Amino acid sequence: MIIARVVGSAVATVKADKLSARKLLVVQEATVHDELMDRPPFVAVDAVGAGEGELVLVAIGSGGRFTALTDGAPADATIVGILDSLEVDGRDTFRKS
Amino acid sequence: MIIARVVGSAVATVKADKLSARKLLVVQEATVHDELMDRPPFVAVDAVGAGEGELVLVAIGSGGRFTALTDGAPADATIVGILDSLEVDGRDTFRKS
Amino acid sequence: MIIARVVGSAVATVKADKLSARKLLVVQEATVHDELMDRPPFVAVDAVGAGEGELVLVAIGSGGRFTALTDGAPADATIVGILDSLEVDGRDTFRKS
Amino acid sequence: MIIARVVGSAVATVKADKLSARKLLVVQEATVHDELMDRPPFVAVDAVGAGEGELVLVAIGSGGRFTALTDGAPADATIVGILDSLEVDGRDTFRKS
Amino acid sequence: MIIARVVGSAVATVKADKLSARKLLVVQEATVHDELMDRPPFVAVDAVGAGEGELVLVAIGSGGRFTALTDGAPADATIVGILDSLEVDGRDTFRKS
Repeated sequence: MIIARVVGSAVATVKADKLSARKLLVVQEATVHDELMDRPPFVAVDAVGAGEGELVLVAIGSGGRFTALTDGAPADATIVGILDSLEVDGRDTFRKS
Repeated sequence: MIIARVVGSAVATVKADKLSARKLLVVQEATVHDELMDRPPFVAVDAVGAGEGELVLVAIGSGGRFTALTDGAPADATIVGILDSLEVDGRDTFRKS
Repeated sequence: MIIARVVGSAVATVKADKLSARKLLVVQEATVHDELMDRPPFVAVDAVGAGEGELVLVAIGSGGRFTALTDGAPADATIVGILDSLEVDGRDTFRKS
Repeated sequence: MIIARVVGSAVATVKADKLSARKLLVVQEATVHDELMDRPPFVAVDAVGAGEGELVLVAIGSGGRFTALTDGAPADATIVGILDSLEVDGRDTFRKS
Repeated sequence: MIIARVVGSAVATVKADKLSARKLLVVQEATVHDELMDRPPFVAVDAVGAGEGELVLVAIGSGGRFTALTDGAPADATIVGILDSLEVDGRDTFRKS
């Protein structure tokens, strides 16, 4: 799963049936230090109740559809976890405040 | 899903059976400000009645086949939503006119 | 689907069972103006009878297996349409001659 | 499968159901010489009991879910093997110490 | 399928069940002229008995699992063919010696 920060949200009234009533969040890939990377933001379905500013795990592709909220939905990116902490080389690089 | 703008359309008389009678649109990845990015346009099946110039959500890969129009179709990209608005860092970056 | 031009063909006598008797074409990603892009050519299974020089649609990944010729085949790229024309911003950028 | 080094771990209390009790490791793509590449670390589910510092094989996408620990889990990256050695052009480029 | 050259092999004693007894080869993407490209080598399961130095076709993703040897295996890359020849723009760019 990629590490990403929730930076916003998207509204689309007209959308495929099985996306209706799903929360669509704008996410951007981030480093293990919670710094945004220079990559284009994209839209993911939120399966865990994530909020803006949180560092999350996004499952790309078919994997993201193995949640109750995304089963059978035409989605290619799902937020599947909210990060509490990341540790790299024995040091905390991120800890949720 | 990636954020993209519908920039045109494609016609292919000879195509795989399950793509027949599907609307094929040319889309190009865009920023949250509806600016086209320097990436090659590609072709997506339209599952929501999108029109040229609209900012849309494109599901890449198997996800895009979970719509009535693309079920079982040999497609790898489907327009699954028409964006009304995008909000990033508390500000509207895009609002459909 | 990506826009690509058929630039050649591949022969592989030893191959996985379900690829036998499949036509393997070399394709290279192209612009909407039918100009080759600086990307490495790759090999796609032909599901529509495409010929060298034609501009085609290639479905990447599982999508490309939803054709009679590629069902159950170990393929990750299939030519699923032959382009007649492309229109971008209201102008024809490609028309098959 | 890509060659990657386990560089850390991730903790996410809130996560999709089928990810609970799974070990989430931070991995970074590496060369055949076990040198980290300049690519962003990402998070993979550990299916083989890998430890920090080990060079591993990571299966990306649906492939990674064909293990007892990841079957049906919303994961897009799984550690499926711990590398003992790599040989390129007739020479050992990596040997586990 | 991408065009790649077999450049080596990998040994991983500890690996996911369904990868056991599978030959793991190190491959690197190549041009139609059998020149290695500047891309990181990766590991693919061999489904066709390929040998070091051979130019092969690698199926990425789910496609690579449609062979007898990779069915149900946690693999994301499979060698599905050994190239005899490649022809581009009417000329042989590669012919197996």
